[in-house]
Amino acid sequence: MATDTSRQDAKRRALDLLDDAGIVLTDAEREDLEIVDFGFDDLSEVGTQIHTYVNTDRYCAKELVQLPGQTCPEHRHPPFDGTPGKQETFRCRAGEVSLFVESDGVGEVTGDPTRTPPNREEHYTAAKEIVLEPGDQYTIPPDTNHWFQGGDEGAVISEFSSRSVDEKDVFTDPKVDRLSNIDY
Amino acid sequence: MATDTSRQDAKRRALDLLDDAGIVLTDAEREDLEIVDFGFDDLSEVGTQIHTYVNTDRYCAKELVQLPGQTCPEHRHPPFDGTPGKQETFRCRAGEVSLFVESDGVGEVTGDPTRTPPNREEHYTAAKEIVLEPGDQYTIPPDTNHWFQGGDEGAVISEFSSRSVDEKDVFTDPKVDRLSNIDY
Repeated sequence: MATDTSRQDAKRRALDLLDDAGIVLTDAEREDLEIVDFGFDDLSEVGTQIHTYVNTDRYCAKELVQLPGQTCPEHRHPPFDGTPGKQETFRCRAGEVSLFVESDGVGEVTGDPTRTPPNREEHYTAAKEIVLEPGDQYTIPPDTNHWFQGGDEGAVISEFSSRSVDEKDVFTDPKVDRLSNIDY
Repeated sequence: MATDTSRQDAKRRALDLLDDAGIVLTDAEREDLEIVDFGFDDLSEVGTQIHTYVNTDRYCAKELVQLPGQTCPEHRHPPFDGTPGKQETFRCRAGEVSLFVESDGVGEVTGDPTRTPPNREEHYTAAKEIVLEPGDQYTIPPDTNHWFQGGDEGAVISEFSSRSVDEKDVFTDPKVDRLSNIDY
């Protein structure tokens, strides 16, 4: 788990990005912003910041913030409970985000070490890059490997999706601990 | 159907409200902004402006714009195709919107004629008012009558929901024609 100092710094920077994007959160929502370090204790390289507006058994909406160069590790949303798995649409609100998605017909590949977090390239296989700027959006099918990384100025991304169940996500990198932040 | 002039005016004003809220739409999305007059030909009193980001068989996300004092008429989303009907969450982004929702245990009532569109009060029954300002949100259960009205400065509202099928909506006022704009 990341140190309190780095977590507070990531939170402050994420809130600044949300403010600059004109997105209003209540004081309680700002306080509760989810800072996810995926167990790497290095939020400058690996992590994401999340505000969840609503998550019912039918639909979900979140705001995701990526700090500059910060990577959300590769994962997929497999089928569960008779559903096809989470389907999600990313809409870039501010900044720029590179979304990497598994391509049809392309087998497992190793990520570009100049793009992936340090020394983790073997755990990145989705190589089709989609750059999203404000006004751009992309829908990721269920059970499809993807990862994403904030551009030079970071990014604010609205995520619209079917129900979200974090525990069902499957990360390619076995080192990832999605729930490492549950006690903060 | 409203005149071209009033439709263009409503569109321009709605786009200004979206711009002021910091919401970026592409040129094509701005052009395609849906202007709904519900068959009343009086967008200053009755109407809504909609941009739909995504509408799959599982989830939907839209931006709704209400001009100052403009009312979206009372309606509900009944069950269809084995689903419980559309469930939706309104999140106010800018301005202020009054949301009127059917109260549990309250039978049919007649709307307040000082709030409803002129001479339509008998077709407004949902009387529980929830005022949403930026950062506020409210989830409307399926099959529940509701209507909403922009405040003095209008409002921009994000709607997160299950699948949206306009043709399944049931309006309380028989004069309403939800699809009156399909040929614009």
